Amino acid sequence: MLYLIGLGLGDAKDITVKGLEVVRRCSRVYLEAYTSILTVGKEVLEEFYGRKLILADREEVEQEADNILKDADICDVAFLVVGDPFGATTHSDLILRATKLGISYRVIHNASIMNAVGCCGLQLYKFGETVSIVFWTDTWRPESFFDKVKKNRQNGMHTLCLLDIKIKEQSLENLIKGRKIYEPPRYMTVNQAAQQLLEIVQNHRIRGEEPAVTEKTLCVGLARVGAEDQKIAAGTLQQMCTVDLGGPLHSLIITGDNMHPLEVEMLSLFSISENGTESTSIDGLRQAGD
Amino acid sequence: MLYLIGLGLGDAKDITVKGLEVVRRCSRVYLEAYTSILTVGKEVLEEFYGRKLILADREEVEQEADNILKDADICDVAFLVVGDPFGATTHSDLILRATKLGISYRVIHNASIMNAVGCCGLQLYKFGETVSIVFWTDTWRPESFFDKVKKNRQNGMHTLCLLDIKIKEQSLENLIKGRKIYEPPRYMTVNQAAQQLLEIVQNHRIRGEEPAVTEKTLCVGLARVGAEDQKIAAGTLQQMCTVDLGGPLHSLIITGDNMHPLEVEMLSLFSISENGTESTSIDGLRQAGD
Repeated sequence: MLYLIGLGLGDAKDITVKGLEVVRRCSRVYLEAYTSILTVGKEVLEEFYGRKLILADREEVEQEADNILKDADICDVAFLVVGDPFGATTHSDLILRATKLGISYRVIHNASIMNAVGCCGLQLYKFGETVSIVFWTDTWRPESFFDKVKKNRQNGMHTLCLLDIKIKEQSLENLIKGRKIYEPPRYMTVNQAAQQLLEIVQNHRIRGEEPAVTEKTLCVGLARVGAEDQKIAAGTLQQMCTVDLGGPLHSLIITGDNMHPLEVEMLSLFSISENGTESTSIDGLRQAGD
Repeated sequence: MLYLIGLGLGDAKDITVKGLEVVRRCSRVYLEAYTSILTVGKEVLEEFYGRKLILADREEVEQEADNILKDADICDVAFLVVGDPFGATTHSDLILRATKLGISYRVIHNASIMNAVGCCGLQLYKFGETVSIVFWTDTWRPESFFDKVKKNRQNGMHTLCLLDIKIKEQSLENLIKGRKIYEPPRYMTVNQAAQQLLEIVQNHRIRGEEPAVTEKTLCVGLARVGAEDQKIAAGTLQQMCTVDLGGPLHSLIITGDNMHPLEVEMLSLFSISENGTESTSIDGLRQAGD
């Protein structure tokens, strides 16, 4: 049996009781290590689970799926995923391969950023399409996701923006020379995402288009959702450029209009005042929404 | 401290390790009992947690929130919610009351139907606004949610339909006489939801409007997501009227067009063949989508 097990979002103890029991009895336990991270490292997980974990990066899962699935018809193999196995990235590919090999699978769900963002008080059912914001380079500055934000806002929906993660990135030089030397991991901050968004807003204005989002659009920055030191900050897109949310992972929500009074009141618990500290001014928040 | 703890979707062991530790040390433990249900009852949870649970129905949470929050500034109180505390229903109100009383709160997240639906293979980021389908009566047959489905489909998005739950319902007679006698709980099935949807489709045709959904629209019925005996069936809306998914809870997805090949392939694992049994015909699925 192949078990796909969600680890949740915070630390080792966010696994479910059922998930932990399965991990402890499986023959091999893989840890997917490319779409998200916990606030604790592999060693902490290994100690808590009492099991050695085999790191599986994107390359391995794609190219060596057969190794992962080896003998899974006669023994139990666990594949651990931060968040939920069907969170931001689905692991459909692994499931389809297993099914073709006649291997049964089971999913043990957990929280993922896709549902845990509800902690800021915005209602989950009012979220439209989720978008991803990638690190821009000098030559690659994609803006197409902005159309989806626009469509969501036109329909009064919030947009969850998942921010880029660069793990096992190679410098151009190392890539050309075929050297498997990797750069330190990079995680996009809410500040960086907001700055890129504001640049897109400016580009729209230069082209004479009315942007769907402005400096004043009410946004929510979230960091380390589900962890002890989680941080949430509600304020304008402009404020998101400078708010300090600490370490990764970060996510950004661009709100839709017509918020429910309860949503506004909840956001006010996290509002950024003029001087950058927390305040609880609901009026300020209402004015921030444009 | 007030702890809002998600229980996940299946049985007692779907609570997280962290959640279980908190439950075991809290002074009082409430179980929210109106927005969703687990496959096991209160007694099974009590035995596994080793704690007595206080059932809190909607009335109590709304009218007696102060009782729930009593002394939570000096002791720990847990409020257990099936799924995630910010799943289909938010518990913003309780949090806002706690905050006003100067009581700190913490959320321990878990899977909810809002992210666990990913198990059918449809990509979560491509879901639009979530809708609720309620039991129709002779005199109350709301259709307004259909506009949201239409909007989602126009934008190529899937729609998750949460199906009605009637708990602590009073007959008109008992309501008038003020007798607190309640009807047995009712949970809408995928069959019932599909039949109501087809009636709305017919009403659109009678009015000369092109319906956004037809008998042939590809849908996914899900039952007891996250439980051992979970069932998923992919087929046309017409097929959803008769597919047998067993006991509650049920959910229905109305797919959007332009599915990714991986989504189609995953759905084919769950496709309903002509004779009502499972088949793996991808072509059949592709034709089913209109």
